[in-house]
Amino acid sequence: MTEQNLATATAGANGREQLLSAASQLMTELGSIDVSLHQIARRAGLTAPLVKYHFGSKDGLLLALAERDTKGSLEQLEELMAMDLDPATKMRIHIHGIIRTYARYPYLNQLLDLLLWDQESESSRSIRMGFMRPLIEAQRKILEDGIASGQFRDVEPEFLYFLVIGTCLYIFSTRVAVHELFGETRVRKELATKYSAFAADTILRGISA
Amino acid sequence: MTEQNLATATAGANGREQLLSAASQLMTELGSIDVSLHQIARRAGLTAPLVKYHFGSKDGLLLALAERDTKGSLEQLEELMAMDLDPATKMRIHIHGIIRTYARYPYLNQLLDLLLWDQESESSRSIRMGFMRPLIEAQRKILEDGIASGQFRDVEPEFLYFLVIGTCLYIFSTRVAVHELFGETRVRKELATKYSAFAADTILRGISA
Repeated sequence: MTEQNLATATAGANGREQLLSAASQLMTELGSIDVSLHQIARRAGLTAPLVKYHFGSKDGLLLALAERDTKGSLEQLEELMAMDLDPATKMRIHIHGIIRTYARYPYLNQLLDLLLWDQESESSRSIRMGFMRPLIEAQRKILEDGIASGQFRDVEPEFLYFLVIGTCLYIFSTRVAVHELFGETRVRKELATKYSAFAADTILRGISA
Repeated sequence: MTEQNLATATAGANGREQLLSAASQLMTELGSIDVSLHQIARRAGLTAPLVKYHFGSKDGLLLALAERDTKGSLEQLEELMAMDLDPATKMRIHIHGIIRTYARYPYLNQLLDLLLWDQESESSRSIRMGFMRPLIEAQRKILEDGIASGQFRDVEPEFLYFLVIGTCLYIFSTRVAVHELFGETRVRKELATKYSAFAADTILRGISA
């Protein structure tokens, strides 16, 4: 393979995924999305200009990362909505799904906050339409079905949204409190799984009729 | 009053409170703690060197602001702990108190995050010892009393901490979701009060025996 061909190959889909994966690793390790293009390129074994080639800008890379990280959850949520399960079971699976996503990408909340911040920006619109709204609508549907079937008490879907998301994400956004309470700064898989069961149980009891 | 005397007066306790109050107003308006010393001084009708005089540095001012904003809540929490109330009522009042604090100082979570970030720093230690630990301990005590008296089911106090704080703060840390769901970017008092009742009800049902 000539050097030219090699460069072309690296500039392809592979380079793109390598860069996203490098950014994801760095953000997870540092517990922060404050990572430079140079660091990302170096971690991927590529060069900073390739980031511009693939994503146009750092914002472009951040948006692509957020889309990559939320894609799986959204697909699972769609599958969940189509399943023949009672609303309480769906809500439980949904809560586990959100926590699994944050456990996998602990920087995701920070990343979404940054991209959403400027409401007029294309990134913000893209995250709102592509992720936030489908999530809000799915949760509303599960809740309304549960109220109609008598499984849930009559609560406001808007309020439930803030309670569910806050419950699921806070443990992943406060290294210091995690350290105070568990002696570690990272929420390991076993802890995430236990917290997930507690969170789902507590919310389900909290909204049951 | 001579100019000299006026300057001395402004440099006193009054100037200090004016600066904290100006910082608090600006952060509330902007929905961000990203405010310059210059902006703070200008809003207070004072000069930037006075900030250094009173607080040593910007970090000093931020720590003083966090201490000012959390002081009232901590005093109320101490009073609550000393009251002759059953654990469920205490937990309910505690949850309302946290939400009232965030409603009053919507930038508080961001501010605490920033100050806590560097765990080795004096600010972080100060917030941990002076605010986070007393909060954790009070909540643990209420929960354990409630488990002992049979009001609460047997849940882990560490898990409850993340659920309660996440439930209370998320609505105040996501302007975009608030806008999507309520059409406004700020959580007004009426909304905060309604959310507070929902959050306390849901958590109490969620942990009741």
